[in-house]
Amino acid sequence: MNYSLDIERTAAKKQKPAADRLGFGKYYTDHMFIMDYDEEQGWHRPRIIPYQPISLDPAAKVFHYGQTVFEGLKAYRTADQRLLLFRPQKNFRRLNQSSARLSIPSIDEELALHALKQLILIDQDWIPSKKGTSLYIRPFIIATEPSLGASSSTHYQFMIILSPVGSYYAEGIHPVKIHVETEYVRAVKGGTGMAKTAGNYAGSLRAQDDAAVNGFAQVLWLDGVHRKYIEEVGSMNVFFKINGKVLTPALNGSILDGVVRNSILELLQHWNIPVEERMISIDELHEAYDNGMLEEAFGTGTAAVISPIGELHSLGRRLVIHGGTTGELSAKLYDTLTGIQLGELQDELGWMVQVS
Amino acid sequence: MNYSLDIERTAAKKQKPAADRLGFGKYYTDHMFIMDYDEEQGWHRPRIIPYQPISLDPAAKVFHYGQTVFEGLKAYRTADQRLLLFRPQKNFRRLNQSSARLSIPSIDEELALHALKQLILIDQDWIPSKKGTSLYIRPFIIATEPSLGASSSTHYQFMIILSPVGSYYAEGIHPVKIHVETEYVRAVKGGTGMAKTAGNYAGSLRAQDDAAVNGFAQVLWLDGVHRKYIEEVGSMNVFFKINGKVLTPALNGSILDGVVRNSILELLQHWNIPVEERMISIDELHEAYDNGMLEEAFGTGTAAVISPIGELHSLGRRLVIHGGTTGELSAKLYDTLTGIQLGELQDELGWMVQVS
Repeated sequence: MNYSLDIERTAAKKQKPAADRLGFGKYYTDHMFIMDYDEEQGWHRPRIIPYQPISLDPAAKVFHYGQTVFEGLKAYRTADQRLLLFRPQKNFRRLNQSSARLSIPSIDEELALHALKQLILIDQDWIPSKKGTSLYIRPFIIATEPSLGASSSTHYQFMIILSPVGSYYAEGIHPVKIHVETEYVRAVKGGTGMAKTAGNYAGSLRAQDDAAVNGFAQVLWLDGVHRKYIEEVGSMNVFFKINGKVLTPALNGSILDGVVRNSILELLQHWNIPVEERMISIDELHEAYDNGMLEEAFGTGTAAVISPIGELHSLGRRLVIHGGTTGELSAKLYDTLTGIQLGELQDELGWMVQVS
Repeated sequence: MNYSLDIERTAAKKQKPAADRLGFGKYYTDHMFIMDYDEEQGWHRPRIIPYQPISLDPAAKVFHYGQTVFEGLKAYRTADQRLLLFRPQKNFRRLNQSSARLSIPSIDEELALHALKQLILIDQDWIPSKKGTSLYIRPFIIATEPSLGASSSTHYQFMIILSPVGSYYAEGIHPVKIHVETEYVRAVKGGTGMAKTAGNYAGSLRAQDDAAVNGFAQVLWLDGVHRKYIEEVGSMNVFFKINGKVLTPALNGSILDGVVRNSILELLQHWNIPVEERMISIDELHEAYDNGMLEEAFGTGTAAVISPIGELHSLGRRLVIHGGTTGELSAKLYDTLTGIQLGELQDELGWMVQVS
């Protein structure tokens, strides 16, 4: 398919930050992609423009009713200077799935991927090459109609912005302390938990702030119905290795279908390591721990890839997992995934998409 | 307390829309209130400026993580030209309660009320006088920090915008058809249902759009745990009159503490009409209907005040309530509340606040 994008290049390129000061989501590149929607024309006017502020009426629905979806993925610069994306089709697929839940009109996924590649090529100087760094990509849609009626918007904007990011682990992968949340709930079946939409994150900030005050990196979310089945950790999916078998909560309508989660499931099957997607109660976790069978625990997501859980503070108990160090499987998954993403390992499962 | 607001008046006043074309939340007045927050200065620079677009970085957290709260209330012009607000302190109180759930710093409620009064006085020509019309007031806070980290924002803006609105009932109060929602859930205990925040509304749009396609005005929300206890109707609280007694769902952590809901509870007590706040299952409603005891049903909220439910389509059944017409108590509550709001009835419960 042949898509024509209007491209307006910036007159004044910004200074790029030093590779060791990138952090996460603090700097943005010189350009952005934007496309408009109205009911008459559908999605129209796809264009790349200089990175710039958005001007919206104070009554724009996104400010009041949160009708918005987003995605997160990364581009990598390999040692031989190729630019690679990790399974980008899955992100645009999921964006449309999120939009369906939020009553937002779907986008043309091929157009989105084409536009992303164009944008990356234009801003390719921004992709850092230092080990562990990458270009974080944030596609998102917001409802822009200036109307206070609590109904779906008639107007939207789809944008893609790019942010060079540092290594999630400045000093190598290391385990974190997690608090099992019992007061707040992230999502419930029938709600928006399976969609990547603002409200899920808004609702999680209070618990996260409270956990941080008490020295925890994140919270482990339990389900909203029984308040005992494990759902996610922070804004990541979660895995446990118990007695040689890998477990992760089944997608039940309130859990995000993570791209890294899915990739790990594929890798484990590829490696013939037993893996189960099913309900996992916090009691089962305690029992496995008491029997010495809770071998590893880790969160998975685009930012960290693998985030080992070293300590789980759960219902008055303190579970120290793998002696508070990174487990062998966690390390192997991290090395394999980042190796494939950086083009250092062979892409046997056909995940990487080259931008050229 | 003496608050000093900077006031910048518009150079070009807009043309006001005709009173019979107002609708809801479509037109905005000449000015708006705005105040900034950062971690160093706290809330600062309260000011009234010409109504204008907001310019935000595309990475502003409100677009991605939905950290935002809002309120809705109305100002009325009485026959003798007084300007009245309905219980505005309750709205600013609730705004802070919502903010606590969303990890947003609290505002000075007295300053907010003072600013609102000043803003209304400046734009008082916008308050329509035709019967049923009013000035809808939308205070809201958005997270503005341009950062993609999924954490609480360091910067916020608090704004108040004003919108002249028409009568919710162009041809007098009339009952609506409601669908009992069984697939989607609005909120769950531990989530954000008790807060007035964007995500709750975002999550409800899909169900509302589906209901509209099938000819329903709104959906009746059931709880997310047992999927059988009644919570809200559309974006309103809900009441039932069963065998002479008035029932409304108790505030359980997932239901909004509505100002109109609270006012109706006070009125009913004032009138010595028996009223109960408790869990109400959809089965109880069916049973009452079958026994001929389901006498009235209505939603309550700032926009409609009272919205009678004429038909409830519930789990394959069609319940016709009060013959599909407005019940006597519904009508009496509507007439009393709007009479007090418009200064036509004596304000025995001390609800109205005059702007002067």
